Amino acid sequence: MLLQNKIMNLPHIQPLNQSAVQSARERQNQLTKPAGSLGRLEELSIQLAGIAGKNTPQIKNKTIIVMAGDHGVVKEGVSAFPQEVTPQMVLNFLQGGAAINVLAKHVGASVVVVDMGVANEINTDNEKLIRRSVGLGTQNLAHGPAMTRAQAEEAIQSGIEIAWAEIAKGADILGTGDMGIGNTTPSAAIACALTNLSPEKIAGRGTGVDDAGLKRKISVIEKGLQVNRPNAKDGLDVLSKVGGFEIGGLAGVMLGAASKNIPVMVDGFISTAAALLAVTLEPACKDYLIFAHRSKENGHALMLAWLGVKPLLDLDLRLGEGTGAALGISLAESACKILSEMATFGEAGVSQSADS
Amino acid sequence: MLLQNKIMNLPHIQPLNQSAVQSARERQNQLTKPAGSLGRLEELSIQLAGIAGKNTPQIKNKTIIVMAGDHGVVKEGVSAFPQEVTPQMVLNFLQGGAAINVLAKHVGASVVVVDMGVANEINTDNEKLIRRSVGLGTQNLAHGPAMTRAQAEEAIQSGIEIAWAEIAKGADILGTGDMGIGNTTPSAAIACALTNLSPEKIAGRGTGVDDAGLKRKISVIEKGLQVNRPNAKDGLDVLSKVGGFEIGGLAGVMLGAASKNIPVMVDGFISTAAALLAVTLEPACKDYLIFAHRSKENGHALMLAWLGVKPLLDLDLRLGEGTGAALGISLAESACKILSEMATFGEAGVSQSADS
Repeated sequence: MLLQNKIMNLPHIQPLNQSAVQSARERQNQLTKPAGSLGRLEELSIQLAGIAGKNTPQIKNKTIIVMAGDHGVVKEGVSAFPQEVTPQMVLNFLQGGAAINVLAKHVGASVVVVDMGVANEINTDNEKLIRRSVGLGTQNLAHGPAMTRAQAEEAIQSGIEIAWAEIAKGADILGTGDMGIGNTTPSAAIACALTNLSPEKIAGRGTGVDDAGLKRKISVIEKGLQVNRPNAKDGLDVLSKVGGFEIGGLAGVMLGAASKNIPVMVDGFISTAAALLAVTLEPACKDYLIFAHRSKENGHALMLAWLGVKPLLDLDLRLGEGTGAALGISLAESACKILSEMATFGEAGVSQSADS
Repeated sequence: MLLQNKIMNLPHIQPLNQSAVQSARERQNQLTKPAGSLGRLEELSIQLAGIAGKNTPQIKNKTIIVMAGDHGVVKEGVSAFPQEVTPQMVLNFLQGGAAINVLAKHVGASVVVVDMGVANEINTDNEKLIRRSVGLGTQNLAHGPAMTRAQAEEAIQSGIEIAWAEIAKGADILGTGDMGIGNTTPSAAIACALTNLSPEKIAGRGTGVDDAGLKRKISVIEKGLQVNRPNAKDGLDVLSKVGGFEIGGLAGVMLGAASKNIPVMVDGFISTAAALLAVTLEPACKDYLIFAHRSKENGHALMLAWLGVKPLLDLDLRLGEGTGAALGISLAESACKILSEMATFGEAGVSQSADS
């Protein structure tokens, strides 16, 4: 681990501020409601207090970082959509017509779109597109490494820097989102490599492959793991052998945000594969991650269980783009507002329960 | 049923508009995302389309109706909080310091507070308080009917009229909320009477009674059911014998909203008891109800299962006040925005999947 961190120059991540955690917990018990009656919102507010280092954390500026990349493995027929959809959807994000645009706007979050390695040209002079391409799509992981170790490092480093830039602009919370035709295949491969669960348990239908497509996808992942033999102890090795540029970038976003005491709302299947990598590279980042939802994609629940985390929502979403993260960010903001805007028993002149 | 409806003059409720349902479903499949990938949000948008009678329903004005009432059964020691808390919390709602105020503001909803039958004086000249008191708290259901049949009718009729008044002011969706020390006891009794499940399965800890308190609560509900023998086929009989004024009012809100083609976001345990009554009185109202969350209160999941509905959220909330409804309303609004604000494949120039 030490050697890895040295190579990567991963930023230092502090443990949560336990005094803020304790103080937020005490405050929750003084607010005008039965203790614990806001359930997960209370827990969430306490985590956010520990991240921010104060008992009334504020979430005002919300940014969802959507990273796009392509995947050589689509040659194996693992997706229902053609690869040209990746840049088409990037343009859709920039024009505001995608689901993530609608949901981000609904919760008051801005969307940042990053080209981490789309295969085809993204034909736009829109300045909002952040161009950090590591390559024109990855290599086919079924036949060898998806990328070089240097590219894996570059992807993560770019993610860290993009997170830092958004935080410097004022973001109080980051959400993760992805776009990349075929990217449930490398995500499943990462999950299999790190959790040691079988591709049959982890792989799902992605954007909607049929039974034959799913069978093919499972055997492609099995082949990719056999050919590449990723080392589960080495997150960079796993990313380079069976990962993707946008997945590495998202892992970097998580590490970068955690190093600046900023929470990250993790979206679904692809973002959770990135979280597995981030936690493998630096376990301390886990406490900064909030898992927005349980995806309908097969293995997602197993990946969350392996991380030992419980997602906020369970709405059968399987779109990615950060759509679940957008909804989760609104819950995080509401949790903070509970801590700072509710009256205490004393302030409101409300009697407490007999055992308080 | 006919006789009942005649007595009550229940408003007519239409079935959902199936042409709008179909049209919204087709539109979802043309939006730039894999078909079905927004899961429950898509289903919700289709239900809302059927309620509104058009394929792009709008939710702009959101109103949460919080009804307060007291319960004679608190004399049996079924709550952890003293009865004086009911009017204290009503004042807290009016002053904006309660959880529902914070969450309603977060989602852009207004809060309407109604005194349906609080026992102690609500000492305020705040004009925002709607005074529709049916009585100074119910009678003790452990020893006889909680209210007369005429009072039960009055509670429901008031709820219908309040819903109509808010809709006339422009509400596109109503949320339900409750306040009433002791009101998990009549709610559980209503659920037992209508579902025929045992008090042991349905009753929970409410605001936080201990083991002895829970045992006492269960035996009080058993006693109330034995003494009163409510008729499960007659919603008014169940409400009058083991219900509460605010619970009847909330059932009225649901019936009133449905009769005006307006959706209702149903909060947790108490609101769901009201929904059981509303659906018993007029089954057609069920399609207008959206169940916001699964409460941590024991029998709530069983009540939802009996209704055959699946709640949106599962956040271990058990506060009431409409807090879960507020969060659910935000999801309903987002579902509508998906339908009206997302680009179609054609508009965005995005290729569709092979089998589209």
